[in-house]
Amino acid sequence: MSTAAPFARPSARLPEQMREVRIQRGFTCHAEGSVLVSFGQTQVLCTASVENRVPGFLRGKGEGWVTAEYGMLPRATHTRGDREAARGKQGGRTLEIQRLIGRSLRACVDRGALGERTITLDCDVLQADGGTRTAAITGAYVALVDAVNWLRGRNEIKRDPIHGAVAAVSVGIYRGVPVLDLDYAEDSDCDTDMNIVMNDGGGFIELQGTAEGHAFRRDELNALLALGEKGIGELFAAQRDALALA
Amino acid sequence: MSTAAPFARPSARLPEQMREVRIQRGFTCHAEGSVLVSFGQTQVLCTASVENRVPGFLRGKGEGWVTAEYGMLPRATHTRGDREAARGKQGGRTLEIQRLIGRSLRACVDRGALGERTITLDCDVLQADGGTRTAAITGAYVALVDAVNWLRGRNEIKRDPIHGAVAAVSVGIYRGVPVLDLDYAEDSDCDTDMNIVMNDGGGFIELQGTAEGHAFRRDELNALLALGEKGIGELFAAQRDALALA
Amino acid sequence: MSTAAPFARPSARLPEQMREVRIQRGFTCHAEGSVLVSFGQTQVLCTASVENRVPGFLRGKGEGWVTAEYGMLPRATHTRGDREAARGKQGGRTLEIQRLIGRSLRACVDRGALGERTITLDCDVLQADGGTRTAAITGAYVALVDAVNWLRGRNEIKRDPIHGAVAAVSVGIYRGVPVLDLDYAEDSDCDTDMNIVMNDGGGFIELQGTAEGHAFRRDELNALLALGEKGIGELFAAQRDALALA
Amino acid sequence: MSTAAPFARPSARLPEQMREVRIQRGFTCHAEGSVLVSFGQTQVLCTASVENRVPGFLRGKGEGWVTAEYGMLPRATHTRGDREAARGKQGGRTLEIQRLIGRSLRACVDRGALGERTITLDCDVLQADGGTRTAAITGAYVALVDAVNWLRGRNEIKRDPIHGAVAAVSVGIYRGVPVLDLDYAEDSDCDTDMNIVMNDGGGFIELQGTAEGHAFRRDELNALLALGEKGIGELFAAQRDALALA
Amino acid sequence: MSTAAPFARPSARLPEQMREVRIQRGFTCHAEGSVLVSFGQTQVLCTASVENRVPGFLRGKGEGWVTAEYGMLPRATHTRGDREAARGKQGGRTLEIQRLIGRSLRACVDRGALGERTITLDCDVLQADGGTRTAAITGAYVALVDAVNWLRGRNEIKRDPIHGAVAAVSVGIYRGVPVLDLDYAEDSDCDTDMNIVMNDGGGFIELQGTAEGHAFRRDELNALLALGEKGIGELFAAQRDALALA
Amino acid sequence: MSTAAPFARPSARLPEQMREVRIQRGFTCHAEGSVLVSFGQTQVLCTASVENRVPGFLRGKGEGWVTAEYGMLPRATHTRGDREAARGKQGGRTLEIQRLIGRSLRACVDRGALGERTITLDCDVLQADGGTRTAAITGAYVALVDAVNWLRGRNEIKRDPIHGAVAAVSVGIYRGVPVLDLDYAEDSDCDTDMNIVMNDGGGFIELQGTAEGHAFRRDELNALLALGEKGIGELFAAQRDALALA
Repeated sequence: MSTAAPFARPSARLPEQMREVRIQRGFTCHAEGSVLVSFGQTQVLCTASVENRVPGFLRGKGEGWVTAEYGMLPRATHTRGDREAARGKQGGRTLEIQRLIGRSLRACVDRGALGERTITLDCDVLQADGGTRTAAITGAYVALVDAVNWLRGRNEIKRDPIHGAVAAVSVGIYRGVPVLDLDYAEDSDCDTDMNIVMNDGGGFIELQGTAEGHAFRRDELNALLALGEKGIGELFAAQRDALALA
Repeated sequence: MSTAAPFARPSARLPEQMREVRIQRGFTCHAEGSVLVSFGQTQVLCTASVENRVPGFLRGKGEGWVTAEYGMLPRATHTRGDREAARGKQGGRTLEIQRLIGRSLRACVDRGALGERTITLDCDVLQADGGTRTAAITGAYVALVDAVNWLRGRNEIKRDPIHGAVAAVSVGIYRGVPVLDLDYAEDSDCDTDMNIVMNDGGGFIELQGTAEGHAFRRDELNALLALGEKGIGELFAAQRDALALA
Repeated sequence: MSTAAPFARPSARLPEQMREVRIQRGFTCHAEGSVLVSFGQTQVLCTASVENRVPGFLRGKGEGWVTAEYGMLPRATHTRGDREAARGKQGGRTLEIQRLIGRSLRACVDRGALGERTITLDCDVLQADGGTRTAAITGAYVALVDAVNWLRGRNEIKRDPIHGAVAAVSVGIYRGVPVLDLDYAEDSDCDTDMNIVMNDGGGFIELQGTAEGHAFRRDELNALLALGEKGIGELFAAQRDALALA
Repeated sequence: MSTAAPFARPSARLPEQMREVRIQRGFTCHAEGSVLVSFGQTQVLCTASVENRVPGFLRGKGEGWVTAEYGMLPRATHTRGDREAARGKQGGRTLEIQRLIGRSLRACVDRGALGERTITLDCDVLQADGGTRTAAITGAYVALVDAVNWLRGRNEIKRDPIHGAVAAVSVGIYRGVPVLDLDYAEDSDCDTDMNIVMNDGGGFIELQGTAEGHAFRRDELNALLALGEKGIGELFAAQRDALALA
Repeated sequence: MSTAAPFARPSARLPEQMREVRIQRGFTCHAEGSVLVSFGQTQVLCTASVENRVPGFLRGKGEGWVTAEYGMLPRATHTRGDREAARGKQGGRTLEIQRLIGRSLRACVDRGALGERTITLDCDVLQADGGTRTAAITGAYVALVDAVNWLRGRNEIKRDPIHGAVAAVSVGIYRGVPVLDLDYAEDSDCDTDMNIVMNDGGGFIELQGTAEGHAFRRDELNALLALGEKGIGELFAAQRDALALA
Repeated sequence: MSTAAPFARPSARLPEQMREVRIQRGFTCHAEGSVLVSFGQTQVLCTASVENRVPGFLRGKGEGWVTAEYGMLPRATHTRGDREAARGKQGGRTLEIQRLIGRSLRACVDRGALGERTITLDCDVLQADGGTRTAAITGAYVALVDAVNWLRGRNEIKRDPIHGAVAAVSVGIYRGVPVLDLDYAEDSDCDTDMNIVMNDGGGFIELQGTAEGHAFRRDELNALLALGEKGIGELFAAQRDALALA
């Protein structure tokens, strides 16, 4: 970055600045948890559905299950994408993301305390501008808490099965500079991006870094991790604020 | 209906009373038209996407195409339904509805004036409480107008390809009484229901009546059609009001 | 219709004239009911198969089920169509038609009297010339009666589960004139067509009208319904004649 | 076979006796060739459809293609089978049979003389009682000849692309005795069965023998081949008689 | 074959000469039987997997099942073929071959003695040079014996369910001369080819002959069968040698 | 780890000890590159296939493409898994892995220098014991080099499109101790595992860490990365040794 051409993010944000984060609970009325999460222009509807059944491999074990499904409305994006239901299969990217969301949320759930129930987190992207998977994880956590509280309000479970909080953010190296919370303009033009999922005890749950162009080095990795920790700290605060509302 | 047990709709509406209708333009940012339409608790996101291609059977004919796809988020409903993308196919109900939406909207489009373009109307149900297909048609019309205006604003088309307006409503016989705009509680417990699609010239575009229990007679049909005409008149007003906003 | 160019149907039929209807029972030997129904050149083989099982949602409720599947042989039509089994899925039109046939026939069946049995009506079009779905409903009714009589002959059911008769016909506005029982030449060139399913008590079971071009008005609708009632009356007579044979 | 329990086929036929064979041309009206072939109770509708295109691997080579598709109506059999279109794929048996039919018919076609056209032979079993694939081959040959004559009548091809005739029959060892043209009762209870496809020059086109129980020996094979040659001779006569009609 | 242009196989083998056959047991470590079989350059990995379940149609009958699946690695062949898992379905050739392998192996198994178990024979072609199905059958037999011996070593079955041996070879008429064990160069350029499956009692289990060009006559068939018997005799010896090793 | 129960890996390896690595070139004969790579008991066949075509999105851009497909033979594992071709779709894990392999290898390829060609890396697991994706990447690199050298030997490309080497290894925290190159026994019982892909310039290409139980901390991450760098260094040596052979 020379003085002649100072570094600038397309959104004019500072490198360590997140987009505005909004977490709106009760967005739809039927689900036990329903959250619209926004990271700037990215908007994901996360619902948590409770069902009194578990997958076959857990039947009779007294444990519950938490799983996720992910989808993107065809015109959530700049140009219309195929509807996966019409194509007849979910793409590799979709499967990869929904597996990530499920693993991330299971990391904060005591499945024994949940009992033989499944909570399905449906994360559907209404509007995409980069970071849909990290927004989905962050919002799905709030929907999950609401669904668990719904169960507790009905005295269906005794102990709280949720330990700690989970949130996620993306980081990347954009034009040589480590930046936090990439939007689409950055994501489609960066050298390296990484999705970081953490719990509020400071531990890493998932770390997925990809070098599209320039392979990254240890010092770059460290800078990215530091940015991620900062951003996730803000997301934990946003989750707490949202959950503090009646 | 005896005097002892007076007729009442679950929603306490009058038989000829529609639910509150809201039509919110510009709901998402990427699509050429994007409308959130609500008939009471039923909420459908309708986007219109313009693409410079036509299906194979129209190539080289100088005509455009208008088509629709329909989906329901898994937890739009009281209990979670399968995600069609995960099941690997769209169900018969979905295909039937999207074919209906497409035919209905094509009825008000001069495809020659549109030129070799496809406008795809994606109607995705965020929250379902009966009448999703009629809300979808009513909202998709507004999204279609916005997309056409977007094309006209760019001088890509000369003549307005849209003639008249299209809207739709359901009617049915609930506990022996013809009622307008059925919600889920009525829809799942009525003898007969009918979806009516009309243009603003007073013509019928589609009429789909089904007797789940009691077969309906000509006088009942006439009562249902009268209710439908009344409701659709209100929908045309709501469409006009929405489109009058800048 | 000016005097200079008098209206004429491609088949030279009068507007209110049906094609020749034939209903041949016992067309194949294995099914409990097997009917070849012809509306002119349109030929549909309708078989009724009895099985001692019900779908999951009815298990243990003491009720039976009636359902339908529809198919068209690849060369039933003027030009060869894809074989749906080879393409790997049934098209939207097929699903729509088989759902219609199933609903129509269930409207005359007391499912409690049927007991925990499924009767599947397979309607396969051997030759198509318009009106395949209405011929299918009309023929499937006769196959259904034969299958029920087979059950009664074996004393497997006590009460007759069939109340009344069901038949269907198409009507449409061809070159401005309401006509009965459209053949392919009319169907592919008409402004409006409607499929009408009625019971022999004069009630409507299904009404599906579509305006391909010109939206239809109440008086046109009334004329179409009158034609439909006339045609369906003739179909009930043809069903009775066929069933009167030993 | 002891003298006390003399051998008898379920149908009371002699071991070397075929079922009654009927070949009815012009069974349906749209296809260029349309034949209903019956081997006793087995009835297969064979249509030949001409299209002016060839598969990708033949494009531009000046050669034509002959291919086949096979299907069985769900209730062609004693108990109802799944509809392959509904299951979403053709079974292995179906694919195996349609590949056999296609290869068999290509053996009598000069594809250069056919020119860049595809003739598709759709063989749909209306009623099954054993031997559906051999009936299909025998009937499809007649439909193919009719389609070729239709092309020649329009002067679209100059030379006759068909050389010789093709027919097929099944043979098997039923209760220790070699028999000709197995019906379902024999087929489901025999030790060995073989499908034989021959041309009218006495050459074998396909030979598919399977020992379900007892492996067969050279002398048994020879007896089976002799029976097959006899039966196929009768089938060539039936084909010639059918084609001799105007 | 004139003296001027003496007949020569591409591989310079004599007409009655097989390729080198190798049968390597214990090729992979997890399966109950695991055999790499080579017929020259053709290499097929055959594993036998024992599972304590049977298909639905055998449940509760005290009988076992033997079945096969066949696959070809995408680059087992000269040019890369589609991966069937990626295409979303197994092709007709694949299904045909795996049905053949399953039937062939069941012919030497007493399913009552096997008990309610399934042995699945997975035959995956690592390298293809003609004759993959016959190599697969020959190798799968050895894997099957190993799996049965594994069961017997654990005293899970009392009687040996295997009676006799099964092997397979291809024969064909290449440039007018009957030859044994066709490689790819011959297979893709021959008039007739036949796959022969026999047991070691000299009986035929399967015989599948196809005339791609020239229909074959009885004397040619006899010559092919004689070659096949010779080759299969050598394969039985190779199987015995392989099984004799500790 | 108390002194009473000293830490031991199931394989008795030291924490920083890799399994024996073997890289065997020319394993099959048709592919332009064909490598059998073993990490201990894990065996993956990696073939590189060159085709003179590129995917649609690259047509006419003068650039090549490198992609990967991954599969596992049904009995590569301890218990038999479904064959994905038979199930009709590739699972999420498969798609995730093949996307990872493709991205990793593209990171060392100059696609302009490759020209309009596609190199497909098929990675098929013959035997699985943990680490199949890292073995696949390591072996696929060698197959890729062989395929590129084949192109260069034919003078089809001028510049070497490969810059640097790529290899991958897994690391994890097993019973509290960071260990290198997890086998199945460790992988199925560890708290955290991470797949690391690096180039031989010391840069990270992919980093995918997952905490199945205990979320990992920065110091643990650092220990894992150090182990990974050590292991990958050994893999680069093994690749160089293999490629040094004629």
